Amino acid sequence: MSYDPREFKQLTFHDVIPKFEDGLDTPRAYLERCLENIAKSEPVVQAFAALNVEGARDAADASTARWKTGKALSKIDGLPIGIKDLLETKDMPTQMGCEAYAGNFPKRDNAAVWALRDAGAIALGKTVTAELGGNHPGPTTNPFNPACTPGGSSSGSAAAIAAHMVPAAIGSQVGGSIIRPAAYCGNVALKPTQGGINRGERQATSMSTHGVHAGCVEDMWQVAIEISLRAGGDPGKAGLIGSLSPPAAQKPERLIVIETEGWAKLDEASKSGFEMLLENLQREGVLVLRRKQHPAIEALENVIVTATAICAAITRWENRWGHRNLFEQNPGGMSERVKSTLALAEAMNPDDYRAALLARETAQLFHCKLASLADAVITFGCPGPAPLWPGDKPGQPLAARPTGDAVFNYPSSMLFAPVVTVPLMSVGGMPVGIQVMGQQHQDERMTAIARWMLETLDRVVVE
Amino acid sequence: MSYDPREFKQLTFHDVIPKFEDGLDTPRAYLERCLENIAKSEPVVQAFAALNVEGARDAADASTARWKTGKALSKIDGLPIGIKDLLETKDMPTQMGCEAYAGNFPKRDNAAVWALRDAGAIALGKTVTAELGGNHPGPTTNPFNPACTPGGSSSGSAAAIAAHMVPAAIGSQVGGSIIRPAAYCGNVALKPTQGGINRGERQATSMSTHGVHAGCVEDMWQVAIEISLRAGGDPGKAGLIGSLSPPAAQKPERLIVIETEGWAKLDEASKSGFEMLLENLQREGVLVLRRKQHPAIEALENVIVTATAICAAITRWENRWGHRNLFEQNPGGMSERVKSTLALAEAMNPDDYRAALLARETAQLFHCKLASLADAVITFGCPGPAPLWPGDKPGQPLAARPTGDAVFNYPSSMLFAPVVTVPLMSVGGMPVGIQVMGQQHQDERMTAIARWMLETLDRVVVE
Repeated sequence: MSYDPREFKQLTFHDVIPKFEDGLDTPRAYLERCLENIAKSEPVVQAFAALNVEGARDAADASTARWKTGKALSKIDGLPIGIKDLLETKDMPTQMGCEAYAGNFPKRDNAAVWALRDAGAIALGKTVTAELGGNHPGPTTNPFNPACTPGGSSSGSAAAIAAHMVPAAIGSQVGGSIIRPAAYCGNVALKPTQGGINRGERQATSMSTHGVHAGCVEDMWQVAIEISLRAGGDPGKAGLIGSLSPPAAQKPERLIVIETEGWAKLDEASKSGFEMLLENLQREGVLVLRRKQHPAIEALENVIVTATAICAAITRWENRWGHRNLFEQNPGGMSERVKSTLALAEAMNPDDYRAALLARETAQLFHCKLASLADAVITFGCPGPAPLWPGDKPGQPLAARPTGDAVFNYPSSMLFAPVVTVPLMSVGGMPVGIQVMGQQHQDERMTAIARWMLETLDRVVVE
Repeated sequence: MSYDPREFKQLTFHDVIPKFEDGLDTPRAYLERCLENIAKSEPVVQAFAALNVEGARDAADASTARWKTGKALSKIDGLPIGIKDLLETKDMPTQMGCEAYAGNFPKRDNAAVWALRDAGAIALGKTVTAELGGNHPGPTTNPFNPACTPGGSSSGSAAAIAAHMVPAAIGSQVGGSIIRPAAYCGNVALKPTQGGINRGERQATSMSTHGVHAGCVEDMWQVAIEISLRAGGDPGKAGLIGSLSPPAAQKPERLIVIETEGWAKLDEASKSGFEMLLENLQREGVLVLRRKQHPAIEALENVIVTATAICAAITRWENRWGHRNLFEQNPGGMSERVKSTLALAEAMNPDDYRAALLARETAQLFHCKLASLADAVITFGCPGPAPLWPGDKPGQPLAARPTGDAVFNYPSSMLFAPVVTVPLMSVGGMPVGIQVMGQQHQDERMTAIARWMLETLDRVVVE
């Protein structure tokens, strides 16, 4: 199915709650509709690494009983949700898209998963991740064209939203693993401020976050805040704070466009679509600032132009011991892609890592300088529509970026900045999400701005 | 054996290196001497949860060959070391002093263990930890009196040093788990700046560090820096930086005495010994500042007077999901002490945690204000000599602090400050270590000051 942002209706949850309260709909019936969509699309989309249908039905029945007696646990009670297969779940295996973890079933709940269940949400399945959250792809295809990648590493979470399988799914991002697939699949998604959502057992890297894919901003925010309300942020961090309901739409007065090193990789159609989007913003009275208009913008651009290299260095080093141990235990159980990343990590020393950390910290200082200039930063969530992914060719070098390029995502990851993806544009019948980025801890404000954009702006369609 | 700091000779390693080079001694022979000491003392001391004697002998032989051919991997090549049984090791089980982990053998090396092996050190055994690094004690006894606790949670590491079983051992501290047992057992020990040594898979808490127990400052520093040279610090942290050899002794000009909430818990003999120690310092020309002499000292005292409660709240919350999962998997596999801590954690909400984080951050700001006043802070490493530990009495309430009280250790833990324990005093034939604390990242300077104290000060013996 081709994607048209003017027509496409996402699956949503918040708007059925009045019907749960009135008895006109139930969480069990909602779940069954999700299961029908899964039955229909899963053979091609392959968003799930595991499903717990019977457990979900039991949970949905319990939720139905709670809504019936006015005892719902939260506003997401009964919401079927996909959990990225990097996070541990006590009732489903956690295989991380990696052969070495085949059958891994630790029977524990990640802190965020615990919080979701505590709020009454229904962990319906584990969504496919690229191997170990890196870039070796899983089987998931893009719901709008099965020849294309859904993006990665939160491939299954993004695709499950686009295919109406669940109204929300948990993703995680180190470089671009939430925002890129969300942008390729037409999702709304929140990559929170670093530390915003408790990662539980997944604390090994200094710049990864759990985040939320959803069909609408309302569900996205509600899921995120219900987790934080119960499990807080990462150790040592205050965690996501904000309204316990989705924030109202908020019109930005000024937006800064950043180009990043991704600008050079854009196709002309996507660029022209983005310019049309900026015109729509200006027509609504938003002042748009470009890099030549203020030295602080140009200064940030200049320090994030090497974001890919900086993020790669930091993450390689941080994954070094985990991957080395895995390799020693099961050398045949990991892809050549992971092995080559490990080799690069093992060529590093602590000073290389320290240099990358310093570059990251410098970029964060430059980003702070933009705080008073505008309400948010706006840019692409992905470099144009999702690329074709025909698979690796035997005997040929491995494709460098089989789940697409995270070039537009590394900056917000290294800035620890909150980002919301907004689906406003299609190029050649495929989604090209844009993103709004705030200063650290402005997660709620970015959500409010994204909501305003979705409620106000004309969609852009480029053939 | 009674402890007399004037007589007691610790086992050391750095001073045998010239003999390795000359062929007058070998790492294999050194190891065999350690094994003899273990054979002699282990039945009573019970410092080890596991030993890998054959693996150690093979490693010692390989090290012997390297020294013979001038190809030693580092200055700790051939050093037999104990690894606290919380850290994963690929050749020994990791049982964490907890029944639920009995037989747990993940066959992976913690990042610091990997670094130690890479430097040629010999992982001889896993040292006993109090359960899960908390306060339910293991079987280890104090080498200077088996009726007393060795302290905890790094019980086995501290006792193994005191009993001459190994010249160095890895410990870890969240509240007082390195410094307190080191002080009870007459060790030298470094609890580094938060993030100083890569904790590998153990990233769940925001205020725990790996550290080094040793018989002398030289070995302590060398082990720490060799780890950092290879594995760096925690994710996102620069890690321990400093000289690649032990720093020379450095006389402090001024020292600040802090009392903490521990002062009220001291016996008179220990207090009088400490005053004698301060007189010795003053005799050497060191200016000693007390809390009434500067408002910044008094201000710090006032914010750390609730350190025990703040640290307990933070750590309980951070361990909440891990302990909950463990409980669900194996409710009979954890002690009543851990269960009651879990119950307290589950009565908390994210705002309680945020309040504790804010108190911690405030204390850190007050600590910074002392930077220009003096070279270091000095205080007790433990509240007097190690208490008797007769075991819990059936039918009686559980002893509150079976491994002693960390009341003097919570402040440095929550300040993320580097601390070195210095064995200079005995009270009633038992060690009472004191500690020097610096500003964050002054690990090397604290080591140099500790070295000066050990090389210069008269020991204090209180009967």
